[in-house]
Amino acid sequence: MRNFIYKNPTQLVFGKGEIARLSSLIPTEKKVLITFGGGSVKKNGVYEEVISALKDHHYIEFWGIEPNPTVETLRKAIEIGKENEVDFLLAVGGGSVLDGTKLIASALATPETEAWDIVLKGKAAKTLPYASVMTLPATGSEMNNGAVISRSETKEKYSFYSAYPQFSILDPQTTFSLPKNQLANGLADVYVHVIEQYLTTTGQSRIMDRWAEGILLTVLEIAPQIMQNSQDYDLMADFMLSATLALNDMIRMGVIEDWATHMIGHELTALHGISHGASLAIVLPGIMKILKEQKHNKLLQYAERVFGLKEGSENDRIDQAIQQTENFFHSIGLATTLSEAGIPETAISIIKERFNKAGVKYGEKANVTGDLAEQILTIQK
Amino acid sequence: MRNFIYKNPTQLVFGKGEIARLSSLIPTEKKVLITFGGGSVKKNGVYEEVISALKDHHYIEFWGIEPNPTVETLRKAIEIGKENEVDFLLAVGGGSVLDGTKLIASALATPETEAWDIVLKGKAAKTLPYASVMTLPATGSEMNNGAVISRSETKEKYSFYSAYPQFSILDPQTTFSLPKNQLANGLADVYVHVIEQYLTTTGQSRIMDRWAEGILLTVLEIAPQIMQNSQDYDLMADFMLSATLALNDMIRMGVIEDWATHMIGHELTALHGISHGASLAIVLPGIMKILKEQKHNKLLQYAERVFGLKEGSENDRIDQAIQQTENFFHSIGLATTLSEAGIPETAISIIKERFNKAGVKYGEKANVTGDLAEQILTIQK
Repeated sequence: MRNFIYKNPTQLVFGKGEIARLSSLIPTEKKVLITFGGGSVKKNGVYEEVISALKDHHYIEFWGIEPNPTVETLRKAIEIGKENEVDFLLAVGGGSVLDGTKLIASALATPETEAWDIVLKGKAAKTLPYASVMTLPATGSEMNNGAVISRSETKEKYSFYSAYPQFSILDPQTTFSLPKNQLANGLADVYVHVIEQYLTTTGQSRIMDRWAEGILLTVLEIAPQIMQNSQDYDLMADFMLSATLALNDMIRMGVIEDWATHMIGHELTALHGISHGASLAIVLPGIMKILKEQKHNKLLQYAERVFGLKEGSENDRIDQAIQQTENFFHSIGLATTLSEAGIPETAISIIKERFNKAGVKYGEKANVTGDLAEQILTIQK
Repeated sequence: MRNFIYKNPTQLVFGKGEIARLSSLIPTEKKVLITFGGGSVKKNGVYEEVISALKDHHYIEFWGIEPNPTVETLRKAIEIGKENEVDFLLAVGGGSVLDGTKLIASALATPETEAWDIVLKGKAAKTLPYASVMTLPATGSEMNNGAVISRSETKEKYSFYSAYPQFSILDPQTTFSLPKNQLANGLADVYVHVIEQYLTTTGQSRIMDRWAEGILLTVLEIAPQIMQNSQDYDLMADFMLSATLALNDMIRMGVIEDWATHMIGHELTALHGISHGASLAIVLPGIMKILKEQKHNKLLQYAERVFGLKEGSENDRIDQAIQQTENFFHSIGLATTLSEAGIPETAISIIKERFNKAGVKYGEKANVTGDLAEQILTIQK
């Protein structure tokens, strides 16, 4: 096991009716900027719950943070925050609203630095206190310090780190009205978050392996049921909690991480607007196939413990596990090839060139270059 | 899933050589009381590492916090803390030293309240900042706010809650010299901590079940190897991390807990001085046998997922799982009956009477009374 430091101070407030707790969780002397996405929270009742809980607070609203939030949109919120001397932010919505809010809160805390420069630096020097009401199980943003921000004019998409949310409220009832494509994207995102922290060298930590496998098994168990019925409280509660636990530092203690799937997926999203979860469903099988030798032992463990594959040759078991991974994505309605997803093959050479030009080397072994990304996408074309 | 609030602010600093980080983790302006047990840290080099890291700090030492720490001993440390106007505490040793330090830190923060009254209240109003260098994987005290304190004169033993440690440093190398009985007690303690949060009603949370099972499987895998060789870094790292994760609030999100095994075990320790882990190895099989019907479904899941038992009637599988649980305790050298452990049968009626007199009702269903405790201990006599 590698040395590590873990500290996650976010308070997780979980369960039905918990949005009402906002009234006491945010001090009344705060000037709050509440941030929203496109308006789904007005349809599912979340907006009213939030506003009712904050009726004795001083707040203003900012609407319109888009999926894959752009710095161009966030700059408007930063201006409004400055003008109104905001000192607390509350994101209400999914991971995009919250990621965007992490940048707003960081830019407001360091007015001398331009917002995109904070993203390029990779880490905010300071962040105003902020919190979330999370309504979409997917990114895990509700209990981590990471955020992914896009820049429209250059089609770039990068992550940076802020402070952790002070608290996040998760009421599974708020997910009941999610459309099927968002459920599928969320399930894929959670699954691949775990894979990024799991599908590396074997023998690093038995307990971290078990916890990662525990989330994978849970997602595989609940996914088909959720796609049939997203109004079962206990199912959606396990989905929401799994999403949080997949990316809140708890399953990465002492182990190396990968993240090559995400880095290639981000490019597909930036270039073709495909949603984040859907991009991962294409890239992950390619990573498994092209890096099959490098990840041989862990793929074998994955085959046995996650899919119960114990018969046949090692290579057969690995091939079956990769096939079952693709089957899982298909079963929730996601494409696993570029052509199925309607992405032209030209994307492959563009990504290859962007990676090679930037000289990036992603993945646990720092060997996923532009050339390897080309192979990974070509096998999934 | 039940509603829950999770917030664990402790910083976990894990790995070889990390004790040196004390120099920067504790502000130099603090007056530190360092607390110790009986002196094993002088033999394994930990004392020297701590003192060397704190050479620029102002500190005093308190030695002699015993296993199952008593309020009588802790009162002496509280006096010394007051006289020296201590404002930070550092526990160096195992769970007993740290539990005792939680009471010292709480009593120093609320000088108007007598130490035992804080224990009886169950919750400290305030706690001075404190931290730990944990050298014994067992109690999980390094990342939770609980502590168990004994009172010699009345043979009582109760838990109370303080603040969480500011940080805990865990270097697996510090465990290499632990004697076999402490390894066994620690393994049993970790195993039963998980069981207390797992062996309840089924269907509460799929992901919490998987995480609990993940720790159980890890302990069962590493225990026989550790009893043969406690100097394997990766084995001891998985043991230490499992001990922390077994009782740091992470596997109890949204689920009911039991703790009847611990409550009866505490009585055996208070009355006969048997070590904590060893007491649990006797009580747990009794709980499983007497509450077999109530816990039928979860025992069946435990049989299948933890021991791979899928053949035979449901009752057979459950009986086998209970037998395998006893086998596990025996394999690490622990007794599972009162007579094996040298505890007289008279303990049974004394505990029955104490429970009935106090009117306690322990366990997930609040049905473990003195009469049920009598049955649980009688079947393990």
